[in-house]
Order: sequence, then C-alpha cells, then structure tokens
Amino acid sequence: MSKEYSKTPQLPTSAIARDEGIKAKTENWFEYFVKAQPHHTDYAGVVWHGTYLTWMEEARVECLRSIGIDFADLVAIGCDLPVIELSLRYHLPIQLGTSAIVKTRLSETQGVKMHWDHQIQAVDTQAVYLTGRVTLVGVDREKGRIMRQLPPSFQDALVKLVTNN
Amino acid sequence: MSKEYSKTPQLPTSAIARDEGIKAKTENWFEYFVKAQPHHTDYAGVVWHGTYLTWMEEARVECLRSIGIDFADLVAIGCDLPVIELSLRYHLPIQLGTSAIVKTRLSETQGVKMHWDHQIQAVDTQAVYLTGRVTLVGVDREKGRIMRQLPPSFQDALVKLVTNN
Amino acid sequence: MSKEYSKTPQLPTSAIARDEGIKAKTENWFEYFVKAQPHHTDYAGVVWHGTYLTWMEEARVECLRSIGIDFADLVAIGCDLPVIELSLRYHLPIQLGTSAIVKTRLSETQGVKMHWDHQIQAVDTQAVYLTGRVTLVGVDREKGRIMRQLPPSFQDALVKLVTNN
Amino acid sequence: MSKEYSKTPQLPTSAIARDEGIKAKTENWFEYFVKAQPHHTDYAGVVWHGTYLTWMEEARVECLRSIGIDFADLVAIGCDLPVIELSLRYHLPIQLGTSAIVKTRLSETQGVKMHWDHQIQAVDTQAVYLTGRVTLVGVDREKGRIMRQLPPSFQDALVKLVTNN
Repeated sequence: MSKEYSKTPQLPTSAIARDEGIKAKTENWFEYFVKAQPHHTDYAGVVWHGTYLTWMEEARVECLRSIGIDFADLVAIGCDLPVIELSLRYHLPIQLGTSAIVKTRLSETQGVKMHWDHQIQAVDTQAVYLTGRVTLVGVDREKGRIMRQLPPSFQDALVKLVTNN
Repeated sequence: MSKEYSKTPQLPTSAIARDEGIKAKTENWFEYFVKAQPHHTDYAGVVWHGTYLTWMEEARVECLRSIGIDFADLVAIGCDLPVIELSLRYHLPIQLGTSAIVKTRLSETQGVKMHWDHQIQAVDTQAVYLTGRVTLVGVDREKGRIMRQLPPSFQDALVKLVTNN
Repeated sequence: MSKEYSKTPQLPTSAIARDEGIKAKTENWFEYFVKAQPHHTDYAGVVWHGTYLTWMEEARVECLRSIGIDFADLVAIGCDLPVIELSLRYHLPIQLGTSAIVKTRLSETQGVKMHWDHQIQAVDTQAVYLTGRVTLVGVDREKGRIMRQLPPSFQDALVKLVTNN
Repeated sequence: MSKEYSKTPQLPTSAIARDEGIKAKTENWFEYFVKAQPHHTDYAGVVWHGTYLTWMEEARVECLRSIGIDFADLVAIGCDLPVIELSLRYHLPIQLGTSAIVKTRLSETQGVKMHWDHQIQAVDTQAVYLTGRVTLVGVDREKGRIMRQLPPSFQDALVKLVTNN
C-alpha cells in the first residue's frame, strides 16, 4: 500500500495564503470544551505542544457528529481522513487545570481536501491560546489512495457545514 | 504567570516566506532514528499525525546534546524553550514497524527564536514522509516571559550549529 | 531530589489481597464519560492499552473536583499525588467511536495512600471493558518526599468520599 | 466483532501469586534503553505514569525482534497480541533527561498467554524505578477471538525465549 498524500516534498505553505476560493462566510464556530489534565502537561507545568492535536481532532470529530456524520462509520465504509497539513501558532501557554474552548470551523473544501480552522480560547476571558489550520484529505482505505471524490452523502453534509458557517 | 508568546492572534505565516536573514548554509542534517511502534499508530494502521511531534522533539533534544547542550540542564538554570509555531506537511503515511530517520537542522535564529527544519525519511529509500518547521522561543521560567537574550553559552553553541549546517 | 516511593523493589501485590481495613461501604461510583477518539486507538482499531490511564486519571481529578478539591490547587500548595501502584485487567476491547463510562471510587485510604477502584463500562449495556485499582500517595513537592500526613482539609474531604461510597 | 478477553470482571490477581508453572529459569533480561524526553514528563517534572507503558511495549517488540519475530509481520498474518493484564509498581520517579534501562523478560507462557516481567533501572546505579508484569494474549484478528494456539513458528520462538532466560 503506497498512498502518497503529496508529490513534492516542500515545506507547508501559509495558512493565510491559502485563504482564497470557496470558504466559510461567517464567524460561526463549533465549540468543544476541554480541560488541561495532568497527562496533558509537561515538565513546564503547562499543556505540552502536541496535546493540542488531540483536542483539535476531538473537536473535528464532534463537529462532524453535530451534522450527523459518525467518524467511525465513515472509516467503516472505507473512507479515511488523514491530516496532510498542519499550521499552528501557540500564543499563550495553558496551565494545569485550566478549562478551554476549542473553536472549530470547516473553512473551505477543495475537492477531497478539507481545511479546518481552529482557535483555542479561554472560557471566561477572550484570551487566545492557539490558532491553527489543519487540512485533511479523503483516502480510500482499501486502495490506499486519495479519493477522486468524497462519498456523496458526506460531501453533501460538508457543503452544508461550510455554507452554515 | 502570564507569558504571552505572541501578541496578535493571527494564523501562522508560511515556513517558506520566513526563509530570509541568517540561515543555515548547507544541507547538513542531524539524524535521529525512530521506529513506528504499536503505541505510535492509530486505527488506520499507520503513525498517528501527532506522534511526529514527539519524534521531532526528541531529535531536537538529541541535536542539542550533540553540541554539548543538555536540555534538562537548560531547564534547570531557568531557560525553557516552548514551541510557538509549527508547520507540517505529511507526504506519506508510516506503517507499523517501519524505521525512519528524523533529519533535523537549526535553520536560523532570530533573537531568542530558533527555527528548526525537520524532514522525516525512509531509512532505505529516498521516500519523504514529512517535512516541517518548528519554531521555539527562549522563555525565562521564573518570570514567565520571553527572554531578551538567550543564556550566552547557549547562544554561542547555537551560532556554531547554524554555521556548521 | 530523591523521593523514593517504595523501598523494596517487589512485584505489585494483588488489588484484591489489599482489600482490608477502612474501605468504601457501598456501590456508589463517580461516573465520568469518555469517547474513543482516533488518537486513542492503535493499529488494531481499538483503544490502545495505555489510553485507559489517561481516562482513569481524568476521572479521579473530576471525582475530587466533585467534592470541592481542585487538583491544580493541591499541586500549587505543594502536594503532589503520584501513582505508585497500578493493577488493571482488560476484559473487552473498545472500538473507535464507542462511548464509555469510567466508574471511579476511592475505596480506601491508608495514611497518605489512596486506593482508587476503576471500572470502565459500556454506556448502554452492562459490558465491562476494564477493571482496575490505582494507588496514589501524597508527596511533598518541595522536599520531594512522601508526606507524613495529607493536608488536613484534603484529608477531611477524602474521609467524606470514602464514607459516602 | 466481540472479542472478550476475560469472562469474569474481577480485579487483577497478584503478579506474585501467578509465579508458578513453567517459567523463566535465570536472571537473563533483554535490555532496552530509553531517555526521559520532554513529552514523557508531566507538570511534576518527572515521567508521567502512563509513559512507562510505551517503553515496556517498545521493549517487548524489540525483544521479540531479537529472536527473529517481527511484530508487524505477526499482525499482518492475522495474529494480534493485546495486553489483558497489567500490574505495576512505581518505586522512584524519573527526572527529565534521565537515561534508563527497560529490562524485559518473557517469564512464562500459559497456552496463548504470555507473561512478561519488566524492571526499569538507572543506567549507572542499581536504582530501580519500576517493576511490573504485563500479560498478553494471542488474538485472531479476523475472528476477533482469542486463539486456540499461537502460530507454530511464533510458539517455537517463544519457547526458546523462555528457556533461554
């Protein structure tokens, strides 16, 4: 199985530069709540930089569930959604015990690519801990290759998600 | 403690766009070997996208050790190096059991910021699994603030690392 | 700093054998809900065996919060609660996307030791995924040593927790 | 798929009590080296208690490789080896930056069950950080059930491992 996500080994292009084409129109975010537990932290007493990837993944899965898409079902019918690009900026550390909101939005789709924006904020203030963009691509699990198109029912649901934003 | 890493909550700028100023001159990489163990994988049978952050962190720590800098000592004298920016592109999935090389290079420093390039490759072929850039910043642990300058001995070692590249 | 948790390097004694002395009287459990997200799984498509430790830790932290103890506050006043013993039995695998209940109970305290029982169950059936016991001990963070006694307010709250069970 | 590992939801029995029957005869251990990296630690500045499970898993995989068994191949031919029981005792914390030896030994097999002993020690002193026993069982991936017997070539290799000990 040799699924190649991207032909040319370049460094990632900017999340900002990509902000063109069909994209989310409003400021509506899906909100997912997390709390900084001991296992999320490192020696510095704050959330380890990789932990945020677990939170953003959970937020995307729950955002999809909110429009009727069960991620495990998608996998079961042979459609996987690996991450192919990731651009994050860490603004403020999150201390042990802190609650935060992971704001999540499917900002645009390009064929079988989905660009998700994330913003992690404090619950009580406007403090922003992290901003980032994560790009997923539809992969045919059996063939191990990028799909030509997403499963129709999934595609329809996504369009609604982008338009609703 | 309110260490703010970055004033304006923008999305990350491109890793490529930042490629100006003092930077590494050659293609010399520090090489760190890893193997895809069961706990690194997810349901898709390949390495989970967040696992790569653990490997790149290990590679940076060992790269610093190779020039005589012990990361734990640095932390002990009050200098922390949190990640403030991360841009990754995933080119090919890594299967369970696969060995890979994490190529690591301090490509440039800007004051107390360190930009590290990473390239994860197959051991036996030229296949590239991931390319990315990770930016760290020197933080004074006691004050919880970005340092004005890195500890002199650390700064000196880093300069050598960039020039050697 | 040389905090030694246990003098003689023996293998763990049984969770069952230890069931003597002051212990929880009833079947009341604290319940904490989790869901098997992609990052919790491994190549086998089910939850990786180490993931359960994150869930049980979260459940203990939230159980303490339910009786007014903020774990981060406890750490801030210099009391840490490392795990010193762990006995788990895995009965059934948990598939990607599955919701589960982490049932948690402080079953007994012995001086500064706390024995917690855990049972992870299906939400809709009586299926049991995991049973286990986790023992924590109060450590003075500054001295790096096991405490002679837990902070009084914490001890009082714990007694209530055991009696309420 | 309903692979049930264990019928009765009891708490784990003691690792010591199980020490009967065919078992390893000598003190020969397989040794696997690890280092406490930033991502292995938690807010307390020491290795998080769940991290040890990743190290012991890696040590078992590499121990099997040392007798010619490739774990990924085993999975590919349909044999999985999930953990069904785990008993750990944490003796001393491991500080950031510390190197350690994960000593690993297949102490006995019972049908399709494999009992592994682990002891994590300091590299330079005799200090013991952790002792534990982990039990795996052979599962037929396709049927999702515990195997009647392990694949013959695997079984043969294991016998040698136990006898060599």
